[in-house]
Amino acid sequence: MGDIRDKVAVIGVGCAKFGENFEKGYEDMAVDAFTEALEDAHVERKDIEAAWLGTFSPQAGHGKAGTSLADALKLFDIPITRVENYCATGMEAFRNAAFGVASGMYDVALALGVEKMKDRPGRGLVLEGHHPLLGRGTTAPGLFALAANRYFHEFGIDKTTLAKVAVKNHRNGALSPKAHMQKEVTIEQVLKAPIIAWPFGLFDCCPTTDGSAAAILCRADLAPRFNKDYVLVKGIGLSVTSGRPYNDPTFDYVGFRATVGAAKQAYAQAGIKNPRKEIHLAEVHDCFTMTEILNYEDLGFAEKGKGWRLLDEGVVQLEGDLPVNPSGGLKSFGHPIGASGVRMIAEVTTQLRGKAGKRQVKRHDVGLAHNVGGPGAVSCVTVLANP
Amino acid sequence: MGDIRDKVAVIGVGCAKFGENFEKGYEDMAVDAFTEALEDAHVERKDIEAAWLGTFSPQAGHGKAGTSLADALKLFDIPITRVENYCATGMEAFRNAAFGVASGMYDVALALGVEKMKDRPGRGLVLEGHHPLLGRGTTAPGLFALAANRYFHEFGIDKTTLAKVAVKNHRNGALSPKAHMQKEVTIEQVLKAPIIAWPFGLFDCCPTTDGSAAAILCRADLAPRFNKDYVLVKGIGLSVTSGRPYNDPTFDYVGFRATVGAAKQAYAQAGIKNPRKEIHLAEVHDCFTMTEILNYEDLGFAEKGKGWRLLDEGVVQLEGDLPVNPSGGLKSFGHPIGASGVRMIAEVTTQLRGKAGKRQVKRHDVGLAHNVGGPGAVSCVTVLANP
Repeated sequence: MGDIRDKVAVIGVGCAKFGENFEKGYEDMAVDAFTEALEDAHVERKDIEAAWLGTFSPQAGHGKAGTSLADALKLFDIPITRVENYCATGMEAFRNAAFGVASGMYDVALALGVEKMKDRPGRGLVLEGHHPLLGRGTTAPGLFALAANRYFHEFGIDKTTLAKVAVKNHRNGALSPKAHMQKEVTIEQVLKAPIIAWPFGLFDCCPTTDGSAAAILCRADLAPRFNKDYVLVKGIGLSVTSGRPYNDPTFDYVGFRATVGAAKQAYAQAGIKNPRKEIHLAEVHDCFTMTEILNYEDLGFAEKGKGWRLLDEGVVQLEGDLPVNPSGGLKSFGHPIGASGVRMIAEVTTQLRGKAGKRQVKRHDVGLAHNVGGPGAVSCVTVLANP
Repeated sequence: MGDIRDKVAVIGVGCAKFGENFEKGYEDMAVDAFTEALEDAHVERKDIEAAWLGTFSPQAGHGKAGTSLADALKLFDIPITRVENYCATGMEAFRNAAFGVASGMYDVALALGVEKMKDRPGRGLVLEGHHPLLGRGTTAPGLFALAANRYFHEFGIDKTTLAKVAVKNHRNGALSPKAHMQKEVTIEQVLKAPIIAWPFGLFDCCPTTDGSAAAILCRADLAPRFNKDYVLVKGIGLSVTSGRPYNDPTFDYVGFRATVGAAKQAYAQAGIKNPRKEIHLAEVHDCFTMTEILNYEDLGFAEKGKGWRLLDEGVVQLEGDLPVNPSGGLKSFGHPIGASGVRMIAEVTTQLRGKAGKRQVKRHDVGLAHNVGGPGAVSCVTVLANP
């Protein structure tokens, strides 16, 4: 395995308003994200040579193939590819676009993720009966709750620790104008919330949300022609394990091998030896509060069993050394599956540029974005940095 | 737009037996194709650094994400991406794998397409209600039959001309040990067959088939280390038009703009000026007999309205100057959607190597593979050549 370090730049990002967008359709949200990204990148529609679309669950003709994006954006007669990889679907659109550019085939490419989760049949998590576990009645909160219970047993934390993740991310989300949830919560509110799947209460779970996000990628050597305010792709790791990890007797359920593997790849490519020190900010996959703590450990920010301490030490707070989910995360933005990974790339890019306004982090030269999905079986990790 | 010319080699290909594989599942067929490709490439499973999976319509847990291929092939802890783009789904797996290799990220990558079309709900063409036209009761034969009727009107051919495509491809298929249909048909049989959608009779339509195919791609400079008998990727074009092309009043219905666009890209990359002379053989998307004739024209093998003459002139026959579908095409192999594009790549590779046995074409230094899908809205064209 080699790398694509410094071959690809992100020259513009865009993000639709995330929320219960009953008044906006799939195509409307894609247009919102694309229009913002075009303006940000200082490119015109005709400069886009190829596109990758991330949509997890097509509905009513939207998102099955590249034509969905062609029609939404009036981007005709160019290559447009749909990718799908569970909750990493959005970041896969970015990853494949990066390869298209790094290969020398395209100078400027679009990665766009969009997903309707509301006003559709089977609102929320729709796996269309394909998933061997969910097909038997297990739900995403239930699957991740098992990890929380095991972690509680192994390392002695309780619901109060999980609540600190919710409080932190909702605080950041209150500073994010595009977030679905823009209000702070207290520890007491989190602990008193109705239980969804023990130990998860309502505020331990990300909401069900519609959204879209876009990134415009460019050959690094050409980037300054369009936009001097660009960031560079340093590494992208993707690791896929079994879709039936729970059948593996060695699976300890206090972390996800896919995240460890994806991070290992991305760090090797980016030349990162000590992520806790060298990563300045991270957008990680907090589908549930417990997942964020597992991510700290799987991404090498803390030792196994000690990730939760970063919350008490203030490390991962907006003012800390390694702010995690400065955007508010999935907790505040929800998780429109195809959109999330691209939204994270957009937030990291904005932070690296120092343009995140009230939620700007202090050290902002190296940022990370991370998804983990399916039954903890697919993870994608991207490292971006200032030139 | 640039190119990836001569950066990527195909070092091995594999193909499951296509057919009504009631005794073989999705994973079984993937294993068959993969095992053959590994042996052909002289690589081991551990050498595969990344994979792309083409499956159009996931069913019962199979094909939704990279995990499906990980579990089938025991390829764990590497990147595996699912792509989907209507009937070009398989060739998209190949295209994105080629970008992964050309980018410098991976030395050796797998592209594998697999699709179950039989023994599943909604046998055959399953669009899950997503398609705006098919959702209203239109079928694939009906959509392409409209093009045939229009072509008859414009250029004066009739069902007898279409029948020549069926006779040619079934003759080639009879020489293909992996084909679903391995028997010759006569013009009389084709003309007497029951009508599916006028003017298409049974033999004007490709069958409903299960199948899988695999290709192993490698950095061109490293290819000889694994296998001296490799071929090179010269160009890959992909063009996507509106998913509602029939709403376009300028759409003349005697050809597909997506194919014209994809071919233009691929030829520019490969430096091909006169495809009729410079392409030695082609595997093209003959989902229906009429489609193959339209492809001749859209791919630049003949002028608009004159493609059918290539059949009478013997050009596209196995013994001709530009044999088309030497494998027997979709007519003989059926169209397991995720598999077809990769199967074409496998056939072109085998022909270029001069190892196609009884169906070997005489000139075999430059070959082309082509898909067109959706409502004629997505097309992918790949040009391969000997070093």
